Amino acid sequence: MTEPTAGPGDAVLSDQELAAIDAYWRAANYLCVGQLYLLDNPLLREPLRPEHIKPRLLGHWGTTPGLNFIYTHMNRFIRRDDWNAIFITGPGHGGPAPVAQAYLEGTYSEIYPSITRDEEGLRRLFRQFSFPGGIPSHAAPETPGSIHEGGELGYSLAHAFGAVFDNPDLLAVCVVGDGEAETGPLATSWHSNKFLNPRHDGAVLPILHLNGYKIAGPTVLGRIPRSELLALFEGYGYRPLLVAGDDPAAMHQLMARTLEEALDDIREIQRRARSGVPGRPTWPMIILETPKGWTGPCEVDGRPVEGSFRSHQIPLTDPRGNAEHLAMLEAWMRSYRPEELFDAHGAVRPELTDLAPRGARRMSANPHANGGVLLRDLFLPDFTAYAVPVEKPATTTSEATRVLGRYLRDVLALNAESRNFRIFGPDETASNRLDAVFDVENRMLNADILPTDDHIAPDGRVMEVLSEHLCQGWLEGYLLTGRHGLFNSYEAFIHIVDSMFNQHAKWLKVTRSLPWRRPIASLNYLLSSHVWRQDHNGFSHQDPGFIDLVVNKKAEVIRVYLPPDTNTLLSVMDHCLRTRNYVNVVIAGKQPALNYLSMPDAIAHCTRGIGVWSWASNDMGDDGRGEPDVVMAAAGDVPTLEALAATALLREFFPDLRVRFINVVDLMRLQPSSEHPHGLTDAEFDALFTTDKPVIFAFHGYPWLIHRLTYRRTNHKNIHVRGYKEEGTTTTPFDMAMLNDIDRYHLVMDVIDRVPSLGTRAYHIRQRMADERLAKRRYTRDVGDDHPDVKNWVWPW
Amino acid sequence: MTEPTAGPGDAVLSDQELAAIDAYWRAANYLCVGQLYLLDNPLLREPLRPEHIKPRLLGHWGTTPGLNFIYTHMNRFIRRDDWNAIFITGPGHGGPAPVAQAYLEGTYSEIYPSITRDEEGLRRLFRQFSFPGGIPSHAAPETPGSIHEGGELGYSLAHAFGAVFDNPDLLAVCVVGDGEAETGPLATSWHSNKFLNPRHDGAVLPILHLNGYKIAGPTVLGRIPRSELLALFEGYGYRPLLVAGDDPAAMHQLMARTLEEALDDIREIQRRARSGVPGRPTWPMIILETPKGWTGPCEVDGRPVEGSFRSHQIPLTDPRGNAEHLAMLEAWMRSYRPEELFDAHGAVRPELTDLAPRGARRMSANPHANGGVLLRDLFLPDFTAYAVPVEKPATTTSEATRVLGRYLRDVLALNAESRNFRIFGPDETASNRLDAVFDVENRMLNADILPTDDHIAPDGRVMEVLSEHLCQGWLEGYLLTGRHGLFNSYEAFIHIVDSMFNQHAKWLKVTRSLPWRRPIASLNYLLSSHVWRQDHNGFSHQDPGFIDLVVNKKAEVIRVYLPPDTNTLLSVMDHCLRTRNYVNVVIAGKQPALNYLSMPDAIAHCTRGIGVWSWASNDMGDDGRGEPDVVMAAAGDVPTLEALAATALLREFFPDLRVRFINVVDLMRLQPSSEHPHGLTDAEFDALFTTDKPVIFAFHGYPWLIHRLTYRRTNHKNIHVRGYKEEGTTTTPFDMAMLNDIDRYHLVMDVIDRVPSLGTRAYHIRQRMADERLAKRRYTRDVGDDHPDVKNWVWPW
Repeated sequence: MTEPTAGPGDAVLSDQELAAIDAYWRAANYLCVGQLYLLDNPLLREPLRPEHIKPRLLGHWGTTPGLNFIYTHMNRFIRRDDWNAIFITGPGHGGPAPVAQAYLEGTYSEIYPSITRDEEGLRRLFRQFSFPGGIPSHAAPETPGSIHEGGELGYSLAHAFGAVFDNPDLLAVCVVGDGEAETGPLATSWHSNKFLNPRHDGAVLPILHLNGYKIAGPTVLGRIPRSELLALFEGYGYRPLLVAGDDPAAMHQLMARTLEEALDDIREIQRRARSGVPGRPTWPMIILETPKGWTGPCEVDGRPVEGSFRSHQIPLTDPRGNAEHLAMLEAWMRSYRPEELFDAHGAVRPELTDLAPRGARRMSANPHANGGVLLRDLFLPDFTAYAVPVEKPATTTSEATRVLGRYLRDVLALNAESRNFRIFGPDETASNRLDAVFDVENRMLNADILPTDDHIAPDGRVMEVLSEHLCQGWLEGYLLTGRHGLFNSYEAFIHIVDSMFNQHAKWLKVTRSLPWRRPIASLNYLLSSHVWRQDHNGFSHQDPGFIDLVVNKKAEVIRVYLPPDTNTLLSVMDHCLRTRNYVNVVIAGKQPALNYLSMPDAIAHCTRGIGVWSWASNDMGDDGRGEPDVVMAAAGDVPTLEALAATALLREFFPDLRVRFINVVDLMRLQPSSEHPHGLTDAEFDALFTTDKPVIFAFHGYPWLIHRLTYRRTNHKNIHVRGYKEEGTTTTPFDMAMLNDIDRYHLVMDVIDRVPSLGTRAYHIRQRMADERLAKRRYTRDVGDDHPDVKNWVWPW
Repeated sequence: MTEPTAGPGDAVLSDQELAAIDAYWRAANYLCVGQLYLLDNPLLREPLRPEHIKPRLLGHWGTTPGLNFIYTHMNRFIRRDDWNAIFITGPGHGGPAPVAQAYLEGTYSEIYPSITRDEEGLRRLFRQFSFPGGIPSHAAPETPGSIHEGGELGYSLAHAFGAVFDNPDLLAVCVVGDGEAETGPLATSWHSNKFLNPRHDGAVLPILHLNGYKIAGPTVLGRIPRSELLALFEGYGYRPLLVAGDDPAAMHQLMARTLEEALDDIREIQRRARSGVPGRPTWPMIILETPKGWTGPCEVDGRPVEGSFRSHQIPLTDPRGNAEHLAMLEAWMRSYRPEELFDAHGAVRPELTDLAPRGARRMSANPHANGGVLLRDLFLPDFTAYAVPVEKPATTTSEATRVLGRYLRDVLALNAESRNFRIFGPDETASNRLDAVFDVENRMLNADILPTDDHIAPDGRVMEVLSEHLCQGWLEGYLLTGRHGLFNSYEAFIHIVDSMFNQHAKWLKVTRSLPWRRPIASLNYLLSSHVWRQDHNGFSHQDPGFIDLVVNKKAEVIRVYLPPDTNTLLSVMDHCLRTRNYVNVVIAGKQPALNYLSMPDAIAHCTRGIGVWSWASNDMGDDGRGEPDVVMAAAGDVPTLEALAATALLREFFPDLRVRFINVVDLMRLQPSSEHPHGLTDAEFDALFTTDKPVIFAFHGYPWLIHRLTYRRTNHKNIHVRGYKEEGTTTTPFDMAMLNDIDRYHLVMDVIDRVPSLGTRAYHIRQRMADERLAKRRYTRDVGDDHPDVKNWVWPW
């Protein structure tokens, strides 16, 4: 076992350097305590009085001094060795720290000019923190230099790795809290080092901040023997360096020495890799063990606070009402010697600001943390070149995602040099039939390659790991630093990252109101192996509900597409890859399925997002105008197939029945235009769906979503939706449709039930449909659905 | 570093034992290949012909022989040493293995009598697997002895630990696939050993099945140096024992020796702990490294299959169409020498069945894996004893969850002896103000306890870990083995386990159609720190969308409750703890809030689930009958407050306006009775909500959910819903209400907009309301919402 190389040793900081770094740290800590507590009197020019204190104290002190400690020490190396670094605040609760640092660096005042670098600016800086209408108590989009929302824990390290992929000069200093370290996503994120290539990727310096407590309880990593702790990180493939203690002077020396060692190590690893030495290096990581709430009050009301869970949030809980607390707060703040830190006007003294890096080297101003600034358009091939020929609708078949794979292959190839596009997924790229991409790219794994491996290479840019959390976290980090990407996954299991999607959508929403945050590339999901084609995986793999979650988020950031066939998928994906600041969800099948639209038709249809398929409709009279008796609508590939088949049956049985066939590609078209920028106006909606005719809607997902999107429409009461109603098992695709009453026969029955004018003959046909579906079901259960008879029977015409 | 103690060594199995165990393993493997391939000719009595092969081959061979290997060896120790063990199949794709084992043990035929123990039974066993209308290809509820759905990966180890908590005699043998091991939830599940006490909990024997590949790519743990692999598990706190190889005879000896060592170790750890030795032991775990698809075809079509990703699913892809494949399949199956395994009738030979454990000791028949069999009712205190007194509605306040904490404290105390109730949560028990439970129980942590700790003990039964995945996984394991529990969490972050909830709800749905699966206790969520009271945490902590996800699942398994005050919360929770086979979601605030209902009223209201609050209504005429002019409805504590305040304002401004006030506790009452067992009939709904009057509905969650639940109701077009529309920031609770237009003033404006008969005076009041809300907003943004003025102003009367 490697012994930690850090320990009490020779001083590496001169007295002067030590004093300077300590002063900077004190300044940062002072600014943080001020943010937590003060409404006024920011420089303590007069004794603290209750009215200087915020009426409600909400924020987190515990992790903050440690964050400031790391940031301050990192600054020294940025200045000395010109590191190009960003800072990721895993313990997001320590929001005051990155804000204080950005203020010290001047970035805060540059971005938010009202927060001036004087006493009034300090007053505003303090007041706004965790105050109504102010800034969140967590690291957030509002925080300069942040690409990481600190609200929900677990994703810091994945974001850090995503940020440095294909950014060879970038260093992500990533602080991981020991609370966050208990989460699943973080626990597996340590393995990201197997997916990083030091030759063309940058470096992550993880710093585990071990301060022993969460909100109320101890942390797991804070309570295991040191031997286990070190073994754990060696097992993860790192060289752990320990910085432990509580005496600031000794800790400054130790941190300076250890950080130097870690950074030297990183430079050396990169030098060797870039001179051609292959293999996965053992990267350094630092374990920083300090008391929770370090330098805060030791004991309050007779109970220990520093070094305990009681300093997690507000160590002194009532300085407004309790004179003793007030006095302790003042003493605490004065312990940082503000008079040495700020000049007469309240500006940070120049001898401190001189210690900060300059310009874009400031971690609060690094352009990589505002990725839109660096974003370049992708080179995209002409997607029409991949079109499958469609001379007549519904006569030929193709596998939509397989064709898309060819397009994506060329996207990878065209951008190979700019290295700004990656595909992420949980080992399902081939399973989702995108395997053409392996003609030009490999799966990434920086480890031994065996002869039995298939397209694995240490410089691959198809990122496959059996963790949706890592895929999502890496991709978010990649996008937030100004690159492009695609996440492909099984539809059902994308729920694993529901919460990460929520957080990213919230981030995008907030950044839209921050003009200094430049738009980033959209987060594109390709969900295949969807609910209707889980032929053998069964019920556990059937869940189309991710869309329901997605449409809860702000309309301006979310888009949902259900291309019905191959050419529409190509058109949709090309569009998505060009967009900014959205989350695009694209759902498409991988199984052989009918082609409906030629590429020109597909483009026109996707541009409209919704439209009548006249070739499948017979609602136009001889005068070229018409009104249908019934509208058949579909969204999704399998529902489109079944609805078309039902339409064909209707035409056979009831040649006089005028059926209008509508297909929906862009689900958001269904919402009112007042609710979503893509929404149809009521007039447009009425023109399509009529104001009074029955509408039978076959939908890919849970049926009530269509009601939710259309309940304000004139004809809503006549819209009858079939979709997945949580019935499933291991069975044939047709049986799946039947279990959920979305099969062609049931759709015909639905029409008969809603068009009384069809007369008594319809009653017999209804019975025939009911018999037919049961017979087909028995048949497919007998022979399986791969039987040629069944195959041929699947296609409507 | 501990060297692995397993290695080539002395034989521990006699030749006879070796032959027997190998035969049993061959039988299991034969049964698995049969399931994957055969429609007929199950005993190969005649040469294999194409028509004996299933038309569509869907299943997973890769992990299956390894699962059989482990299971078979474990059986030997169960028989020899009477272990009480269950088997958890992490690589759920290996579904054929637990089915084969259950068949060999006789359990399968006992539960599914048509699968007889003869040739015809074999034919049916083979045919049903991954066949339309048959059984899933994954371990599933249908699989005897399983508590673990193998569809979505990552939860096996958490389930295993949950199963053995408070089950001191139980051993959970948990196989973790090296694919699954990449997931976040699994990566942190290894830390569960810090939450297990060997004195009163059982043991988990994790077996990492290292077979090197996922679907297409290599696994991370399969490609790190052995030194890292061992360090990793030492770091997790285990003693890793390695069993690696591919020669069956040598591997049998090695496995027998290693498993004995591990099991001896477990017994010794338990003996010492139970004789009073404290502390966390170093539990053994096994790393089983075998070729993927072990004993399957080595090479097919010139490409390596055994030992490669190509054996993940179907190694021989076309035996129906390719004569060479067919011949290889026959040779492969015959390599297991079926004639030695089955008698003339197709029954497994008695010398093999003799090797299986007996009765309830069979892992496929262990009652712990069918927890409903063991389930005992909780002892519940009289919840009315915790009631807050309410003489007059809306005059006193209490913190709902704090009062509930007292009730839960006594639930813990009453069931301390039976040890069948635990509380789970991500370090938020105190933060959610349930801290009364710490009067009688501690947080569990089996590690060093420090003087600064608060209610931490190695035998606590409040399970706090900063991983919602672990909380959920442990609780599921605990429930599935016949115990009770509660998961408390921040509302927004429960989305972290969306996908786990989905899988558990699906499990419950399927078990409802399996009469042999006895009902288990419901999974109870208490979501506090909800969207409306994230006073300083801000936007990232605001998401009420878990309900939207929940109501996608089958109506018969899901329940959603929104108790508006303390007494209703007590009544609801008492009810939930008595239910079976549901997922109950209870959303309740932790902040001081008004009490509305006395306990008798609360019980009556919760029993109805929805009802008119007559004390807040004035829609009854002098004759005791009445029809309102407008219906004000609310669901959730903050919406109820705002709706009541709006009602009070309306009464002040428009004394003649007849307002009916409806409160909804049980959200499912809104659905039609045809859709949910709790649903109101249309007549009941119409009687409450009228058929034509405006309804202003203040809702806790996203507003469209109410539309989705009510779109079929007569009066739906007049229902106007206010709820959270994804607007939020760091601000006061009132400002939050205002940002989302659910505040009292806006609700009054909504009524004015919908009741034209109010006349022109209403126009001026509307303007006054609009001014007032902006003024209040400015005010609270100035002083913060903890100012006494604001506090007093919050309450409606």
